[in-house]
Amino acid sequence: MAETTPNHTQTVSGWAAHDSSGNITPYTFKRRDNGVNDVSIEILYCGICHTDIHYVKNEWGITRYPVVPGHEIVGVVSKVGREVKGFKEGDRVGVGCLAATCLECEYCKTDQENYCEKLEFTYNGVFWDGSITYGGYSKMLVADYRYVVHVPENLPMDATAPLLCAGVTVFSPLKDHGLVESRGKSIGIVGLGGLGHVAVKFAKAFGHHVTVISTSPSKEAEAKERLGADHFIVSSNPKQMQGAKRTLDFILDTVSAEHSLLPILELLKVNGTLFIVGAPDKPFQLPAFPLIFGKRSIKGGIIGGIKETQEMLDVCGKHNITCDIELITPDRINEALQRLANNDVRYRFVIDIAAATSNN
Amino acid sequence: MAETTPNHTQTVSGWAAHDSSGNITPYTFKRRDNGVNDVSIEILYCGICHTDIHYVKNEWGITRYPVVPGHEIVGVVSKVGREVKGFKEGDRVGVGCLAATCLECEYCKTDQENYCEKLEFTYNGVFWDGSITYGGYSKMLVADYRYVVHVPENLPMDATAPLLCAGVTVFSPLKDHGLVESRGKSIGIVGLGGLGHVAVKFAKAFGHHVTVISTSPSKEAEAKERLGADHFIVSSNPKQMQGAKRTLDFILDTVSAEHSLLPILELLKVNGTLFIVGAPDKPFQLPAFPLIFGKRSIKGGIIGGIKETQEMLDVCGKHNITCDIELITPDRINEALQRLANNDVRYRFVIDIAAATSNN
Repeated sequence: MAETTPNHTQTVSGWAAHDSSGNITPYTFKRRDNGVNDVSIEILYCGICHTDIHYVKNEWGITRYPVVPGHEIVGVVSKVGREVKGFKEGDRVGVGCLAATCLECEYCKTDQENYCEKLEFTYNGVFWDGSITYGGYSKMLVADYRYVVHVPENLPMDATAPLLCAGVTVFSPLKDHGLVESRGKSIGIVGLGGLGHVAVKFAKAFGHHVTVISTSPSKEAEAKERLGADHFIVSSNPKQMQGAKRTLDFILDTVSAEHSLLPILELLKVNGTLFIVGAPDKPFQLPAFPLIFGKRSIKGGIIGGIKETQEMLDVCGKHNITCDIELITPDRINEALQRLANNDVRYRFVIDIAAATSNN
Repeated sequence: MAETTPNHTQTVSGWAAHDSSGNITPYTFKRRDNGVNDVSIEILYCGICHTDIHYVKNEWGITRYPVVPGHEIVGVVSKVGREVKGFKEGDRVGVGCLAATCLECEYCKTDQENYCEKLEFTYNGVFWDGSITYGGYSKMLVADYRYVVHVPENLPMDATAPLLCAGVTVFSPLKDHGLVESRGKSIGIVGLGGLGHVAVKFAKAFGHHVTVISTSPSKEAEAKERLGADHFIVSSNPKQMQGAKRTLDFILDTVSAEHSLLPILELLKVNGTLFIVGAPDKPFQLPAFPLIFGKRSIKGGIIGGIKETQEMLDVCGKHNITCDIELITPDRINEALQRLANNDVRYRFVIDIAAATSNN
């Protein structure tokens, strides 16, 4: 792979964790010059994803410190390389999880670059020039335009940021199963968090009958009255679970914590699919019988391709869908990470990057 | 459900297990009169399925003794009820696992009666009239014609018998994934037993590239030279497994014994499906990562619908596909069950029912 952008001369202010304490402090670092295929982006907002916690604390053992997290990035284009197509200065844009892929494999060539084996992430990855990638907890980003998407004019930038990861993560499974175009299916959403609440919005906007399956009875009013869910099941209530057996066409499971798949699978009709996007640390216990006796599937997936991400944002523009957020200033990142670890957020923290003073 | 055939007046010779020793002895019992929707079948051959072992030994705790096993039944129609359509005396026919379903639910109405919630099996089930069903280890069967299929004229009856269960069990997943009509896909078959060897024949007949994945290196020659497999992987050989990562479009896992799904899943390309038809006693350990990072699915299924079973037999007729069998006389059923429990059969025992003397 040619090193198209070997020179890292641009000084950028950001926020980084320096060790597994996960404590985030202001950090000044270098980004590459804007290459021929690059756009430079003045970052306005960056969402805080649960993945960020894993990285700052090195919970997966793969963190390269200092790590500048953030892969839910929105901002305005400030510079455009000469080979860039489709972007100009001043454009409102977003960048999600992808920084680089091989551009040559069957997946890259069919808009599934999120499954490229040479995929590198927006932070803690290794870019083509050998440099470590730094994410969106920073004031400026240089990104290859092939991994940048447009933000529809009618969407607020702050509440759009989390869509770049959380949004496409739940949109892609719905798209994959033809649920963006079709209507009137019975869809279950397991977990009503950062991902789940956006999934409910999508599924309702696409005209489906939506059942939220949650461990928290307290979320019922919110799910139904504000998000528009049709039905709510407390997963620890055997009677409710039993009563909903074989009623759902498709279930999207957004829960990363360890949980049992068996009762969830039994909610599916014959030929139904349980799509998982969360990855618990331990393997699932998967009994064969609910699959065999119901011709059911379990499928997994990670984010979406770039074309799909753009489609997702366009759909959000059309239906006025954004993420419910708590906007914070950069000096409150550590507090936000702590609250996120405690599931104390409805539903996503977004950092107001522009609110940073020179000292934070 | 109307009791259309309440009278059990026909005396039939068969073979049954009477307790959990699983020992099979001659057994004379009654079958219902031939009802308006029934055909009576003079049984010629009956395959021995691994499921029979579970039932005769009450391994699932649901056996109703005496149990007359057998759901891989072929024979000749000897009587036809007045409402029966499509069958006449002398027809060569087969009966598989299904004795009755509700005929009214969405699955019954869409040729998926194998997923009807009121499904009753050919043996150890409860028929509409309240009677216990007795299977094909017997000289005569009364079957509702809606669960009976025609055996193509060019197929030998004995080697066709196991197709009624083993055959449709592996045909249905291939059909479900469009692999009967399409060609040139890369397909893996896990396990080269009663199910697996028929699956290899199907997949080759349909024009696919077939990889057999087996724990037994000794089966390589057989798989390749006689069954026509293109490739053979020993599942305990990490180098071979590693070398085949992301190469298969679809894998059919026919193994009922406990085994790890992780290395098998990694053989699948992105968007690939692992279809399981065996049900180990213990749950699978399912790590989320191979699903998520490869957009892969695990799906299950049980046998097939009646229309699909007929299609399977017609396809077998067209391609001259049958099961490789060892034909035994009824006095050797216990020996065969024992050898089957030890996996000592290539590839299916079939009982030559007509070879029974009055004493066995």
